[in-house]
Amino acid sequence: MAESTSDSRPGTPLTERSSRVAVARKLTRRAGREKAGAFLAEGAQAVGEALTAHADDRLRVRELFVTEQPRHAELAERAVLAGVPVREVTDKAAASLSETVTPQGVVAVCDLPRTDPVAALAHRPKLVAVLVGIADPGNAGTVVRVSDAAGAGAVLFAGDTVDAYNGKAVRASTGSLFHLPIARDRDVSAVLAACRDAGLRLVGADGHAAGDLDTADRAGELAEPTAWVFGSEAHGLRDEVKAQLDTTLRVPLHGQAESLNLATAAAVCLYASARAQHR
Amino acid sequence: MAESTSDSRPGTPLTERSSRVAVARKLTRRAGREKAGAFLAEGAQAVGEALTAHADDRLRVRELFVTEQPRHAELAERAVLAGVPVREVTDKAAASLSETVTPQGVVAVCDLPRTDPVAALAHRPKLVAVLVGIADPGNAGTVVRVSDAAGAGAVLFAGDTVDAYNGKAVRASTGSLFHLPIARDRDVSAVLAACRDAGLRLVGADGHAAGDLDTADRAGELAEPTAWVFGSEAHGLRDEVKAQLDTTLRVPLHGQAESLNLATAAAVCLYASARAQHR
Repeated sequence: MAESTSDSRPGTPLTERSSRVAVARKLTRRAGREKAGAFLAEGAQAVGEALTAHADDRLRVRELFVTEQPRHAELAERAVLAGVPVREVTDKAAASLSETVTPQGVVAVCDLPRTDPVAALAHRPKLVAVLVGIADPGNAGTVVRVSDAAGAGAVLFAGDTVDAYNGKAVRASTGSLFHLPIARDRDVSAVLAACRDAGLRLVGADGHAAGDLDTADRAGELAEPTAWVFGSEAHGLRDEVKAQLDTTLRVPLHGQAESLNLATAAAVCLYASARAQHR
Repeated sequence: MAESTSDSRPGTPLTERSSRVAVARKLTRRAGREKAGAFLAEGAQAVGEALTAHADDRLRVRELFVTEQPRHAELAERAVLAGVPVREVTDKAAASLSETVTPQGVVAVCDLPRTDPVAALAHRPKLVAVLVGIADPGNAGTVVRVSDAAGAGAVLFAGDTVDAYNGKAVRASTGSLFHLPIARDRDVSAVLAACRDAGLRLVGADGHAAGDLDTADRAGELAEPTAWVFGSEAHGLRDEVKAQLDTTLRVPLHGQAESLNLATAAAVCLYASARAQHR
C-alpha cells in the first residue's frame, strides 16, 4: 500500500486525515468490510482477544491503532511481539474508527473470517444458535456472547440478519466473536439444511408455540444436539422458516409479561439446552 | 393549577411552550418526579398498561398527552371513558416529553407509587429480584420485564440503583412496571432484612461464587422462596452486601466467555428458580 511520508514519521501520531486511518475507517461500513476482507475490533477487551486469536493462528490481526495512553502499552507490546504493526494515532483519529460514545483509543484491524455454515459445523457441535433476521447489532453481539457462555459450538447468521462484524455487534459480544465459529449465509434454507446435515435438531424459539421449554426439558428433548433458531425482534420467525424446523418452543411466561426480549429469551433457551446436555 | 387560556382552547394542540407540557417535562428528571409524585409512561404499550392499571385501581393516571395521529384514537377514547383528561399536543411537544429517539406521540402522567419493600413483600411472593447499584436504566427495565415473565412477585431497587421510573427504564420494562410491585430504598441492609422477614432465601448472582446454578438446582435449593440479588454491571456485588446473603451462585460458563451481561444473567437465574418452583 502506498503511504505518505507524514503517515510513517516516527513519534508523530497519525491524524484522522492520514491515509492509513482513512482506509481503516472504511471498515466501519459493511460494504467496506466486504471489499477489504477486514473488520475492526475496538476496545481493550476485544483487541486482547483478537491478539490471542492471532497468536493461536485462528485469525490474523493486520495492524493495531493506539493512542498514546499508558494503559494500552501492554496491548501494543503484545502486538509488536506477535509481529503486528502498531500505529500511534491521535484521540480524534481513534474516535473516527470507533462506533461508541466513549472511544477507548485502541482498535485492531482483523481479517474477516469467511466461514460458511457447513465449515462452522464441521466439528459437530451439540449446541448452535441460528439468527434469522435479527436487526439490532447489540442484540446480535449479546446473543454471540450468551451462546459462547452456554457452550454453543457455532453461531450462524442467516437471511437479513445484521452483520456480525458491525462495530456495535463486535463490542456487545465482548470477545466471544473470537471464541467460536461465526458463519453467514443469506439463504436461510441452506443454513437450516447444514444444521440438519450436522445432526442437529432444529428448534425455533416462538412465543406462540404449543410446547414450552419446561415440558420439553422433562421429556428429555433438550438434551439432544440442538440448533436454536431465533427470529427478528419485531416479528419473530416467519411461517416459511417455522415450516422447516423440527419443532418450536416458547419460554413459559409465569407473570403478566407478554414476551421477553431477544437476548434474554435466547439466554433462557440456550441455557436450558446446556443444562440438559451437561446433566 | 393555574392555566393560560391558550393551553385549553379546544382544537388547538398544546405546544412545547405551554405550561401543562412544561410542567410534565419536569418529570423527565428524577428530582422532578420525586417533587411532583408522578412519572411519565411513553408509547402505546406503556400507556395502554397504565390505563389498565388505572381501571383496576392499582395506579392513577393523571392525564394523557397525545398527538393527533389516528393510531392513538383508541387510547384517547379509553382515557376519556376512564375519566382521565386528554390533552392534544403537537409532535414537538410530545417529543419534548420523550426520552427516546423516535417519540411515539402518546405519553401518560401517572402517580408515582410510593411502595416500600415491606409493603411490596406483604403478599409473601416466592420469587423476588433485588437490584443493588444497577446504573443503566435499560438494564433495570429489562430486569423488571424478565422478573415479571419469570413470575416474580416484586422487584426491589436498593442502594444507588437507577430510578425505576426513569423514562428509559419504563420503556425497557414494556409494561411490566405496571404488573408487579416495585419498591425503592437506599438502605440496602433494610431491603435485605425485609426479604428475610418475608421468608425469602437471599441468593446473590456472582460470577466468582463457589457454587453454580446447576448444582444448586440438583440439590433442590432453587425451589425455595428466593430473593435473587443482582449487583452493578461494572463491579457486581460488594463484599459487605455478599456478607448479608445466605449464599451466592454463579451461572455456569461452558464456553470461553468470561461473564454474561446483567440482563441475560438475571434471566437465567430467575428462570432457573421459576422452573424449580413450578416443577
